[in-house]
This record gives sequence, structure tokens and C-alpha cells, in this order.
Amino acid sequence: MLLETINSPEDLKKLSIAALIELADEIRPHITDIISRTGGHLASNLGIVELTIALHYIFNTPDDKIIWDVGHQCYTHKILTGRRETFNTIRQDGGLSGFPSRKESPFDVFDTGHASNSISIAVGLAESQAKTGGSSKIIAVIGDGSLTGGMSFEALNHAGHLKSDIIVVLNDNEMSISKNIGALSSYLNRMMTGEFISNIREELKSRMKSMPTIYKTAKYLEEAVKGIFGPGMLFEELGFQYVGPVDGHEIEPLLETLKNVSRLKGPLLVHVVTRKGKGYTHAEDDPERFHGISTFELTTGNSLGKGRKTYTDIFGDTIVDLARMDDRVVAITAAMGLGTGLDRFSDLFPDRFYDIGIAEQHGVTFAGALALGGLKPFVAIYSTFLQRAYDQIILDVCLQNLPVVFAVDRSGIVGQDGPTHHGAYDLSYFRHIPNMVLMAPKDENELKHMLYSAYRYARPTAIRYPRGEALGVTIDEDFHEIPMGTWETLREGKDLTIIACGNMVNVAVEAADMLRQGGILAGVVNGRFIKPIDKDLLLKTASGTERILTIEENVLAGGFGGAVAEVLAEAGVLIPLRSLGIPDTFVTHGSQGTLRKALGIDLDGIIRTVRAWLRKE
Amino acid sequence: MLLETINSPEDLKKLSIAALIELADEIRPHITDIISRTGGHLASNLGIVELTIALHYIFNTPDDKIIWDVGHQCYTHKILTGRRETFNTIRQDGGLSGFPSRKESPFDVFDTGHASNSISIAVGLAESQAKTGGSSKIIAVIGDGSLTGGMSFEALNHAGHLKSDIIVVLNDNEMSISKNIGALSSYLNRMMTGEFISNIREELKSRMKSMPTIYKTAKYLEEAVKGIFGPGMLFEELGFQYVGPVDGHEIEPLLETLKNVSRLKGPLLVHVVTRKGKGYTHAEDDPERFHGISTFELTTGNSLGKGRKTYTDIFGDTIVDLARMDDRVVAITAAMGLGTGLDRFSDLFPDRFYDIGIAEQHGVTFAGALALGGLKPFVAIYSTFLQRAYDQIILDVCLQNLPVVFAVDRSGIVGQDGPTHHGAYDLSYFRHIPNMVLMAPKDENELKHMLYSAYRYARPTAIRYPRGEALGVTIDEDFHEIPMGTWETLREGKDLTIIACGNMVNVAVEAADMLRQGGILAGVVNGRFIKPIDKDLLLKTASGTERILTIEENVLAGGFGGAVAEVLAEAGVLIPLRSLGIPDTFVTHGSQGTLRKALGIDLDGIIRTVRAWLRKE
Repeated sequence: MLLETINSPEDLKKLSIAALIELADEIRPHITDIISRTGGHLASNLGIVELTIALHYIFNTPDDKIIWDVGHQCYTHKILTGRRETFNTIRQDGGLSGFPSRKESPFDVFDTGHASNSISIAVGLAESQAKTGGSSKIIAVIGDGSLTGGMSFEALNHAGHLKSDIIVVLNDNEMSISKNIGALSSYLNRMMTGEFISNIREELKSRMKSMPTIYKTAKYLEEAVKGIFGPGMLFEELGFQYVGPVDGHEIEPLLETLKNVSRLKGPLLVHVVTRKGKGYTHAEDDPERFHGISTFELTTGNSLGKGRKTYTDIFGDTIVDLARMDDRVVAITAAMGLGTGLDRFSDLFPDRFYDIGIAEQHGVTFAGALALGGLKPFVAIYSTFLQRAYDQIILDVCLQNLPVVFAVDRSGIVGQDGPTHHGAYDLSYFRHIPNMVLMAPKDENELKHMLYSAYRYARPTAIRYPRGEALGVTIDEDFHEIPMGTWETLREGKDLTIIACGNMVNVAVEAADMLRQGGILAGVVNGRFIKPIDKDLLLKTASGTERILTIEENVLAGGFGGAVAEVLAEAGVLIPLRSLGIPDTFVTHGSQGTLRKALGIDLDGIIRTVRAWLRKE
Repeated sequence: MLLETINSPEDLKKLSIAALIELADEIRPHITDIISRTGGHLASNLGIVELTIALHYIFNTPDDKIIWDVGHQCYTHKILTGRRETFNTIRQDGGLSGFPSRKESPFDVFDTGHASNSISIAVGLAESQAKTGGSSKIIAVIGDGSLTGGMSFEALNHAGHLKSDIIVVLNDNEMSISKNIGALSSYLNRMMTGEFISNIREELKSRMKSMPTIYKTAKYLEEAVKGIFGPGMLFEELGFQYVGPVDGHEIEPLLETLKNVSRLKGPLLVHVVTRKGKGYTHAEDDPERFHGISTFELTTGNSLGKGRKTYTDIFGDTIVDLARMDDRVVAITAAMGLGTGLDRFSDLFPDRFYDIGIAEQHGVTFAGALALGGLKPFVAIYSTFLQRAYDQIILDVCLQNLPVVFAVDRSGIVGQDGPTHHGAYDLSYFRHIPNMVLMAPKDENELKHMLYSAYRYARPTAIRYPRGEALGVTIDEDFHEIPMGTWETLREGKDLTIIACGNMVNVAVEAADMLRQGGILAGVVNGRFIKPIDKDLLLKTASGTERILTIEENVLAGGFGGAVAEVLAEAGVLIPLRSLGIPDTFVTHGSQGTLRKALGIDLDGIIRTVRAWLRKE
């Protein structure tokens, strides 16, 4: 195997073009094989093999700096930069990160994870180099999906202004995670198909026909005809020199283009056209399913070990039921139709489904306006990505008290995607916003009723639920509305009462039952409303138990335990209180079970904490 | 006065064009006169008088819906829509809001306040109308400054995709708040000056000369020459029909353009060119100073009642000192050079000053990369606007532990700008992010030392300080580094100890002294580090006092009081604890003093709370 001789980009540079092509053909099945066993991001990585080889061949990494937007497409990069032998540990406990990681390698320039920030990073590095000296080339590799994130546009605008010496490599696969949407995408598409110039001409003509009365406007349009424009006009207008499009799966023209580009001063934009899933038929045919995938069978592409329904599935089922009940129900997702379980909804109600692309800020404000206009919007965005729209949640939903429902999937510990993706903050960032109702279900049946309740409350409401399989409880046929701000007591307790939140309720019940066998009378309360909190039940609980332990899968600072502490203090209740949750640190990647264990928010951890606490006193 | 006959847009429609011109000439001095006495946003409002008249003349408001991006330019709109007589109460206690307010009038469609969300709102309203029926025209009025915010681009992209029936009126005054920056701005400028077409031609020629070896690239550039393009290409490419540019101070062509546009289906973009400060010489000459201004003398334009130095001034002085000490110190602002006190810095160190435009997301990540590249970036952004970059603070600064200093001005109650602008959340949203150091100074001298300390810590650090005059204390000549995570005891207390944060420290000291006169032995601790908290001093304080009262100018949920409650609980300390701060509600506009009084976070409020607490027990 040629691949076995590649331990760094230096080794790459000794190869002929034919050998580079052979190398790409070796890397592709290698990645597919390993990811079929570990799970991970597949389609995007298969699409970028040649481009990654070409970049490391032409540029002098790690002196020259490659920034991977989002970062999930860095597998070939990792393999080529000294991590070939450990690549099979990717995303596993203690193994390689699935994203660029500065701790892991000097070739990893920035720990990316969320979309659309790579150009900003490149502009900053170029500017600091301009001040401190140095002549590294700075390259941002960004997909066309990430380009729809407004932050990319902010950075392009600034780079054009500063005339930053950067190279933006646009990896155009016509996809974000789902099929890419938006006018920009159709613009890029027309550029590639050559329909561009003729279309514009037709548009101009027909426009002038349809507006006979707008004389002054027509004059400007007439002016237009005198102009000239290139395929990269949009980028050129922002001050970038545009190069492309070039086929991202042909090594030779790629090398030639990048070599030429490497001699120019930026800002430059190189438009590379690739295909997601390239080389693995199943992924080419269904790139969205193979975007981020768990283990699968190599020959058939079928997912392995699909077990119980996930919380995502239940959300997907429930929103279809709600949509059938009320045609004002609409759904918004940010390039995550499949990931958030909206695939069935979008099939059944295509004109009530809005995939706004990777554009969470716009998505939230758009939903606020839909609500103001009389619709019932459900915004399904992962906890970690919703951080992008924090300001819009405050101003454009809560300040106006608009009935937008946030279905906050992937809350808490997400597992293998690691520190950039854990939904560690949502209880804290939603809790301090006025007018917000904030819930977390103890199981999938409660999730169903919470979604219905949120629909009924007609207020800004967020429901956070975790990644992965639900508990497998029976789902009620009918809906019922949960009275706002009510908790429920699941076990009465004397020695202590555990007030748990969301997916921690079930484990708290198990812990309480085990503690009871050991003679500790532990109660459990389902703290299903984080806001408004059930003050009455909290105070009643506090008066009937000796200690309170809160448990949440969220940072402790400002989270659920903090809310309980605040209410008890305000009420003047003095009772021993401890809180389990995510401490004040970034949590690494690994399986959810391993990470929960390490954080002490699993069955053992709870029992250990309680026993130590009672022993100490 | 013609103006006195206008009680609604209906009255406007009876006027001749000559009368409309006369009306504009009446409105302008009327606004200037009143704002000279109340303070407010002046320059932007003077620039948009004719455009506002024309919009209400042509469109059928409030059925047709005008969304004002940012919203601070809505004064003429308020005057024309039934609020002429109350306009002199604008921004005053109990008076009209300085921003659109749905509670105030059916003509106010959305409570805007932060930039760049108007197109998203328009798209949402248009889409809900498409579903629910109705034929209202939906118009977003957005400045060229707001257009640099990435969210605008996200919305344009989505609108082009949906083919939304909306009209975007681009109010192009070449300014955001400061002089507008970015490649987009220079693009708009070239469009207006006609340099556009010839420039492109020149660029193409010179580019082809400078790249003799890029044969393939040159081929694409050659292709380009065949094309045609119009002045609104950038917008056209995103699916918008472009109309303009039109002079925003000439009523007749404005009316004609808007009338024609009103008959078309969207998405449409109307490019209107206006001048900030139009008609008031002082504002025309210095639109940045007259953007948001306190009371001033009408004839001279001089500000009235400039008192003590503000916290902003001290920040401005200190960063200049730091920049002189270390040439790695750079400053970033988002269109707020003057507002954040960076004017002197930008004069002295123009190439170390980055105004990134209204683009907070990009600004924060850009700063992270500058820090990674070896510089010492200070990001000066108001608390409320920094909410836009919450995700970037987490991932692109704190996760990577990069030494970016956030100078968080306008924290707490900002006063007249009201609910969209209070810096009510920063203690909560910064506190739960790992690796962050978070401080608040008790006075301007401490601010100076905190800025130096942040520079020395070389970690992600935020310093929050309030709007307005500082205390007038003596400023030390030298810097000293405050040991990280240390509080200071200012008064020992037996009956209770007040642990106060930032600008609440001084009032706590006053309160303690008054309480002491009444026989209550009250202590005061300066809780200057919100994170890391001074756990040792907190526990020592708790052991020597009977009660703890925390005070902060931040929402109570997850704030400073919450942090104290969490630490005490974790340590197993049972002590009566109360917290004063902003409750779980949006705070209205008014003077800072009035609002603080209403919230009970002034001298009287503290004393009242303490006395009631002690009496009750």
C-alpha cells in the first residue's frame, strides 16, 4: 500500500501525479472501512480526498496554515499528517478527535466545529502575520453550505476591505448537510452549468418588458447592458480574486490551479467542485444519511444496531401529528432536516417545511415573524448550533413574547462529536431570558406531551432532549397538556430527595431504588420545568426531606441546580443542597456512557455522591 | 404649521408634492429641537425624513407593514403615525420608546433594536401571509451599515430562494454608526459614482497581465468579458430585482419609484441614497457624534452637561496606555469606535484599530485568530450587541483558551434605549463558559487596573462596566495587577454582609454606612471577580456574618447572586442569602436612576430590603 509510506506531507511531495491518484484511491476505501466500524462523518470526507492531497502537496504545512471550516471533513488531512496509524481510534474514547484539534497536532490550526467561521479565522491569522512578520500562506477550506452562514459573508466583506492575503477554497458540493438551499447556491450552480450569462440576459429583457412605467429604473437597467462580468462576480465585488471552477476530483488540474494560486497575493477565492460521498455508491446516492452516520454494513450501506426509537424519532412523529391537527404548524430547520427528524414532516408537508440552510440567526427571527403572522412555528435546531441565535431568541422571540417552540435536540452530552458539539449550555442560556418556558422530558412519552403543551401554551417555549435512544416506554395515543410550571414527585424521600432534570430522571429513580435497598430513604422529583420552576413543590419537598440533590446534564453554572439554589435562598429555606452536572470545563469526545461516568452523572456517580455525602455528615 | 394637521398617514395622502416637501422641512427642525432637549438618535433620523414620508404616502400602513431595521430611525414614522403630540416624551420616563414598539402603536410592526434582522422579519411575515392569506405589502427599511451584518445576507439568500414578496429599501448613507466599512460599502459606493464598470475592466486587464502562467484561470477570465452586468448585480444574483439608486431627499422621484415598486412582486431591493444628519449642519459635519447624543445646544451643536469622565473614557485612556507599552495590543470594534471610546486609540494607532462593521460574530472570531497569531486583542462591544457573538465566544475564544479581552461597555441598565439595549445578561452568559475570567470594577480606577490585569492574565477575559459617568475617584498613575479571583472586604459586618458587583459596590457602601447609623452592622465585600469567584473570602465572610445580600445589575437568573448561592451550597454552608438584581422581566426605557429605583437596586431599595429582612425574622 502506498498509503503506508505516508507519514507526513513531506512524503507526499515525493510522489508522482499517478501515485497521488493511486493514493486517493487507497484513502477512500480506508476511510469508508474505518467509519463503517466507528461511525463518523463520511460523505464530506469522501468528497475532499483529492483536494486535501493537493493542498498538502502544494502548500508547506504546517508552516502554511489550512483551516477546515466546520472541521468534520478533516479525515484525509489527519491521515496525511502523521495520524494514519491512530486513525482507527477516531471519535472513540481516548482516541483521535473527529475534528481538528490543536492539542493533537501542529497541523491542526484551529479547533473548528461549527460552520462558517473559517474565513474569519483566516483573516485574523493573516492580519496578525502582517503585524508580527511571517510569510505563511493561510488557507480556509469552506463548503458552499457553510457559505450561507452570515458570518462567512461578514468575513468576506472584511477581508475584501483589508485586502487580506488569504486563500479561500470553496468546496462546492451543492450540499450543506442536507441539499443546500438558498439563492447563493443556485447562483453557484448556474456558474457551473454555464446558464449564467444567458439567464441574466433573458432576465434583463423580460424585466424591461414587464415594467413599462418605470422609466428611471429602466434607464439604470439599460446602463447595465454595457457592462462585463465574470463567473465570480459576487466574490469579485467583495474584493476577492476568483479562480475556478475546477474539478475537485482531478488531481492534475487541482495541483496546477493551487500552484498558480499559491504565487498570488490574496484575497483569493478558488472554486472547487466536488461530490459528497464520492467513490462509495451508497454515500453518493444518499449523502445526507451518510453525512454523520453510526456504524454500518460496508457492502449494503445499511445502518447497524438501530435499536429503540430515539428522542429525535418521537419529535418527528409528534410534529406530524400536530401538523395534521392544525395547519398553522410549520417547521424550521437549519440544514438538518434528517438529523432533527423532520424528514417525514417535510415529505408530508413540503410547503410547511423550511430548511433555511446553515443560518440559525435568520432562522430564529424568521420563526418569530412567522409566529407574529399567525403561524405555529417549531424550530428544530441542535442545542450547540442554537447558540448562534442567542441574541435573536432574546430579542426577536422572547421580548415580543411570540409563540415559537424550540425543539432543542442533542442537548447535554452528545458523545463522539466532542467539545464543539455538546449541548452543555442550553439550560443556562434559555433560563435567564424573560418570557421563556423551558422544559426537559423524563422520557419520550413526556416529550410527546411537552410538544403538545408547548403548542398549547402559545408562548416562547424550549424543550431540550438528548441525543440517542429513548427509554422505550409506551407512547400514549392522545395528547395531554402538562400544566405549566409543574413538577411531579416520583418517590417520596426522607434522607434526601433527588430533583432531576430530563434524561437524568430515570437514572435518579434507579439510584433512589438502590439507595433504598441500602437503607437510605431517597426520593425523586421530576424537575420537568426548568422555567417556570415549580416553587410550591420545591418548597414542599424541601420541608419533607433532609437534603436535596439536583442532577442535570448541563453546566452547573447558572443551570438547573443553580435555579433550585436561587429559589431556596429567596424563600429563606436553609437545607443542604448539592448539584451534579457538567463542571466548569470543556468535555472531551467519547461515548455518552463513558463521558457521563467520568462526570459522575451516571448511576454509580449518583450513588457514590449520596453515600459519601451522608457518611461525611 | 402643516405638521399640526397630520395625525395619521391618511392626512399625508391629502397633501400635494409641494406640501410634502414643506412638511419634511418642518419635521427636520422639530426633531432636532426636541432631541436637543431629550437626547436621542439624531443623524439617522434627519437622513430619513423624506423616505419615511414617501413610504407612508405610497403604502397603506398599518395594513402594509414597514419594518425598521435597528429601529432608531423611526422618529418621523412616529410623528406621522399619531404620536406627534407625545413625541416630546421620547425616551423619557413613561414616554414614547425611542424604538418601534408594538405596544405603542399598530404602525409599529416589530420591536427592533439590534441591527440586521429586518429582512428576516419581512421574509417571515411574507411567508405567513402566503399561508394565512392577505395582501399586505411588506417593507424592510435597512441601512447599508446593517447590511454588513451576516444575518442580512442569510435573509437575502433565503428570500431569493423563497421568492418572497417583500420590498427591501436600502437606506444607503455610507455610514453604519461610524463611517461604514467593508468591501460591500465600497461596492455600493462605486455603484453610485459610476466608477464601477470602468474599474472592473481595468482590474480584469491588470489581473490578466499579472498572471501570465495561469492559463486555465485566464481562460475563465476571458469568458467573463463576454458577459453583461448591472449595478445591482450582487443583489440580482441573490434573486432580488434591483431598483435604483434614487436620491432619498427628493420627494418626487422617491414617490415615483416607490409607486412603481409597489405594483411589482418581490423580492425587490430599492436603493435609496441619503445623507446622515441632513439639514442640521453640525450633524452633517459629524454624523458619528450625532448618531446617539445626549442633550445639546441647538445653535452650536455642543453637548450639554458633560460631567465627569465616563467608564468609556477611562477604557479609551487605558487602552492607549497599554498600546504604548506593547505594540501587540490591538483593538476591535463593531461600528462603535466613538461609542466605545476608541477614537483616540484609532487616531494614534490607525493600523492597530479594526472597525469590523456591524459584524460581531466575525469580530470575535477574528479577535480569537489575532490572539492565536500572537497579538493582544481587546474587543470593545456593548454588552447587548455582544449577545450576537455568544457562540463565537464559546468556541473560537474560550474553547481554545485564547487571550482575548472583552471590554463589555453598557452593561446593566443603559437607560433611555430601553429593553433591546440593556446589558442585562452578560454576567449570566459569560459566567457559564469554561476558561473565561469575568470581572466588574467598583470604580474607574479599578477598571484601569482590571484592563491591565486582563492584559497580563493572557486568558479569555471579560470586564463589564456600565454606561455613563464614573465616580470621579483619583486614577492611579501606575498599573497594578489584581490577583485573579480575589475579592476585597470594604466593611466588616456582623448582622449582614453585602457582596456587591461592579457599580453596585459604591451604593452598597453608602447603604452599609447608613444602616450602621441605624444600628445594623452591615459589611461590604467588593465581588469584583464573578469568575473565578473568591471562594475563600466568600466562605470566610459567611462564617463571620449572619446574612448575605448580593447585589448586581444583571438578571438574577444565573447571575452573580446565583454564583454565590451555588458556591455556598456546594460548600455545605447554610446561611440566609438574598439577592438583588434585575428580575425575570424585560426592563422598560427611562433614566438609569428611575429604572434602578424601580428595580430596588438603588440606595433606598437596598436599605428597605435589609430593614424588612431583619424585621421579619
